Amino acid sequence: MDLFGRDFIVTQDWSREELEAALDLAAQMKRERFHRRFTKILAHRTFFMFFYNPSVRTRQSFECAATELGGHAQFLQPEGMRLKTATSAGETVEDAARVMSRYAAGIGIRVLEDKVPFYGAGNDLLREYARWATVPIINMADDKYHPCQGMADVMGWAEWFGEGPGRPQYENLRGKNFLLTWASGALARSWCSVQEALLIASRFGMNVTVARPEGYDLDPQVYAWTKANCKASGATFRTVSDSDAGYAGAHVVYSRNWVSPNAYQNGEFKKAAEQQKSASYSGWTTNAERMARTDRGIFTHPMPVDRGLEVTDEVASGSRSAIYDVAENRLHVQKAIMALTMGNIAG
Amino acid sequence: MDLFGRDFIVTQDWSREELEAALDLAAQMKRERFHRRFTKILAHRTFFMFFYNPSVRTRQSFECAATELGGHAQFLQPEGMRLKTATSAGETVEDAARVMSRYAAGIGIRVLEDKVPFYGAGNDLLREYARWATVPIINMADDKYHPCQGMADVMGWAEWFGEGPGRPQYENLRGKNFLLTWASGALARSWCSVQEALLIASRFGMNVTVARPEGYDLDPQVYAWTKANCKASGATFRTVSDSDAGYAGAHVVYSRNWVSPNAYQNGEFKKAAEQQKSASYSGWTTNAERMARTDRGIFTHPMPVDRGLEVTDEVASGSRSAIYDVAENRLHVQKAIMALTMGNIAG
Amino acid sequence: MDLFGRDFIVTQDWSREELEAALDLAAQMKRERFHRRFTKILAHRTFFMFFYNPSVRTRQSFECAATELGGHAQFLQPEGMRLKTATSAGETVEDAARVMSRYAAGIGIRVLEDKVPFYGAGNDLLREYARWATVPIINMADDKYHPCQGMADVMGWAEWFGEGPGRPQYENLRGKNFLLTWASGALARSWCSVQEALLIASRFGMNVTVARPEGYDLDPQVYAWTKANCKASGATFRTVSDSDAGYAGAHVVYSRNWVSPNAYQNGEFKKAAEQQKSASYSGWTTNAERMARTDRGIFTHPMPVDRGLEVTDEVASGSRSAIYDVAENRLHVQKAIMALTMGNIAG
Repeated sequence: MDLFGRDFIVTQDWSREELEAALDLAAQMKRERFHRRFTKILAHRTFFMFFYNPSVRTRQSFECAATELGGHAQFLQPEGMRLKTATSAGETVEDAARVMSRYAAGIGIRVLEDKVPFYGAGNDLLREYARWATVPIINMADDKYHPCQGMADVMGWAEWFGEGPGRPQYENLRGKNFLLTWASGALARSWCSVQEALLIASRFGMNVTVARPEGYDLDPQVYAWTKANCKASGATFRTVSDSDAGYAGAHVVYSRNWVSPNAYQNGEFKKAAEQQKSASYSGWTTNAERMARTDRGIFTHPMPVDRGLEVTDEVASGSRSAIYDVAENRLHVQKAIMALTMGNIAG
Repeated sequence: MDLFGRDFIVTQDWSREELEAALDLAAQMKRERFHRRFTKILAHRTFFMFFYNPSVRTRQSFECAATELGGHAQFLQPEGMRLKTATSAGETVEDAARVMSRYAAGIGIRVLEDKVPFYGAGNDLLREYARWATVPIINMADDKYHPCQGMADVMGWAEWFGEGPGRPQYENLRGKNFLLTWASGALARSWCSVQEALLIASRFGMNVTVARPEGYDLDPQVYAWTKANCKASGATFRTVSDSDAGYAGAHVVYSRNWVSPNAYQNGEFKKAAEQQKSASYSGWTTNAERMARTDRGIFTHPMPVDRGLEVTDEVASGSRSAIYDVAENRLHVQKAIMALTMGNIAG
Repeated sequence: MDLFGRDFIVTQDWSREELEAALDLAAQMKRERFHRRFTKILAHRTFFMFFYNPSVRTRQSFECAATELGGHAQFLQPEGMRLKTATSAGETVEDAARVMSRYAAGIGIRVLEDKVPFYGAGNDLLREYARWATVPIINMADDKYHPCQGMADVMGWAEWFGEGPGRPQYENLRGKNFLLTWASGALARSWCSVQEALLIASRFGMNVTVARPEGYDLDPQVYAWTKANCKASGATFRTVSDSDAGYAGAHVVYSRNWVSPNAYQNGEFKKAAEQQKSASYSGWTTNAERMARTDRGIFTHPMPVDRGLEVTDEVASGSRSAIYDVAENRLHVQKAIMALTMGNIAG
């Protein structure tokens, strides 16, 4: 399994075998976190992190990952970069990417929400970097996908349906019921995490239910991929527009607020309008009563959790909440992906 | 002396023996700064630094400390964090602290002045992080305390009354006279450093004099602890409201501007009002004439020094100024505290 | 060749032998980039980077350099520092530099353009830091000089006229023709890079032509040094005010927009006025037709390139463009300079 030099922009770009190779390494790294086998993989190497949008969890976990592999992640904010835009002089992506490839072992990029003018522009930018860079481009969340979150999710679920932390059983996810439900809240979140959740759940053979109010559908391309993934493994895909219907028999419940397909208008991310629209749908909160109707379902969320709106405290902090395990797994999957795509395996 | 996992929020929380263990290790680390005994203690480990308020010295010294212990300090500014507040959606301290405990060996927090709505709110926030985190919380200066400054202070004084850099003699401080004097200036400084100076000086048996204009008293709880510390070692505590009286016979002179107890009003830090109030008291400057009345006293200050107002150049850059030694000691005491509370002693 | 402890503020401060020692080490480090001979030189040491002005390339390459030498570069932005100015209280450079010398192995400073009130004030600030610091001050670009860029330039040219990457032949530059030409564009760039290019080209025996519109001359001191350098090696120096004349017979072509000597007025950097003035001179673009008149000349530029104005895409991305090699060399020369001036050679 030679993944050296590969970009990681969406899980759908990698084969099931490649994803499993990364997940297996991640589990091994979780069990033996500071083993010397792992702490020299990026020795003296640099990983550039480009945060067009701020982030805490993603920055913390990527920078930790580089440190634990013996390397160093540089925290870069492109507002300090003079990149060429339609209206201002500056450096082209070609020049930036070609020079950065001389310095670093890999480049992570985060760009979404108000930093992009239309849905897909963030992902386009990543693809443009990938076109010119000779080192791997790692998606740290764009407007379409968040593959590291998807990997952390499926690893966390497989630990709960396996033998616990660091001992996931991916085969046990096959045929389980995955509910992704839109949730109340005012955070106007973009689609990257939930879309990756659909892709990865379906990739691992889960039956997928998307519950959302009318007018909150996700990217048709992601639905199409999800359906194809389900079909390939004999699983089912459905959408429901009722806030209650999806819980019955669910094994994994994922609730999160997200914006409507109209979030971008005239080159702008209309956050306030989305917050207002979202406020007109109440009752989309995961609570204990709903969880009781699942098949001993676990609760999952990519965090930060909007407690009281997306989910009650009782569920988020409850005994069937996987949120902290999933968050921890961000570290381990990212270490594995960095090791495989840019690691100095020879030492 | 097992300090692994302990928080360090105020020196008063630690026993005299525990403080001395840290100080002894700090002196050893100063004498043998890059010895391999010390450079693997945090190997591949991460220390999170949360700067609600900016800082140069604290950031430099903590980040150096992590590097010298073989680890890495992440510089994090919470304005990039979506933390829940009374009026905005975001992540709870519970969630933030529990996830960060999965990534890092420890967490440092700095929060004071304009970033808190009332005196004590900063310290409350640290205690809330400490409640949920399963790794040590290190106070990098809150609105009440600055324990790492206090440790650097006492180490510096004990070096001057001992055998020089890296060879402090703490017993020699017993019975010495410590003058903490309010000073002119427009920096509207908070109380954390001076309060820690009172606590640590009294803890090590010094006679304490606080000189300040009427209306500039510090936290009654700190005065009470200081008096109790003095009483326990047979030392004295007094306050004077004259800018001259305290110098006679002093062995250590600490002058610094600080705000009045009315600095917070209606949830805001009234910096301009405090600067104006401060300007009405002149002549509170440490100068050579005053130092001449001490018992060969040394001058100490946590820096940055407001030269010309808090102290004259002649004294600050003079042969009895301990300011650079104390500043250097920030590095060594922080290394020792990090090593003891979060160090991978087993290698 | 003992360069330990030396500042690096302008190449002219170092002897030809000292510059060559650094360049030789840089080439060796390029050929054997992660060799263990180099990866412990700054083990556990800290390098402070002070960015008064933002920068991408400089920050990336210095931070990489520290990492590859086993150390750590702290990214510091002085807006977070309370430094004393004419109108505000704060810390003196004396105090800042003396304390930082206790923490770090060296200090890099970048200060130019809108962060200085008049031409030369940035360089003055570096000299003031150098006066007080007991560790090396490395110029990361001030308003006068950019010595690390100059070193990367000459290394890149000597690779092209030598045996390729990592195998420069400096003697082959002797007698070659170097064209520095002002270029169209709206980036209002300061003089540091182009002035260093004049100094270093003349230092290595090249014949120098400066082409610029009337009113765009550079610092007379730099012209004087350049002439003296040329004279010492029997080379020639001339200025021309025609956008075409300099290309004939050139071996190295360096085109770049820069501001006029009137850029600073009344304590301010008049960027808009300079952009407007620059716009009145068109046709100063390096293109294939002009390059065809050189003696198989290479194209060089310190980046970021303002494509279409300073140079056409055809030349910038063409087979005789040295821009990426020069950019890469920033890393290698900086590693060499840091190793020689602050390296823990004893391990």
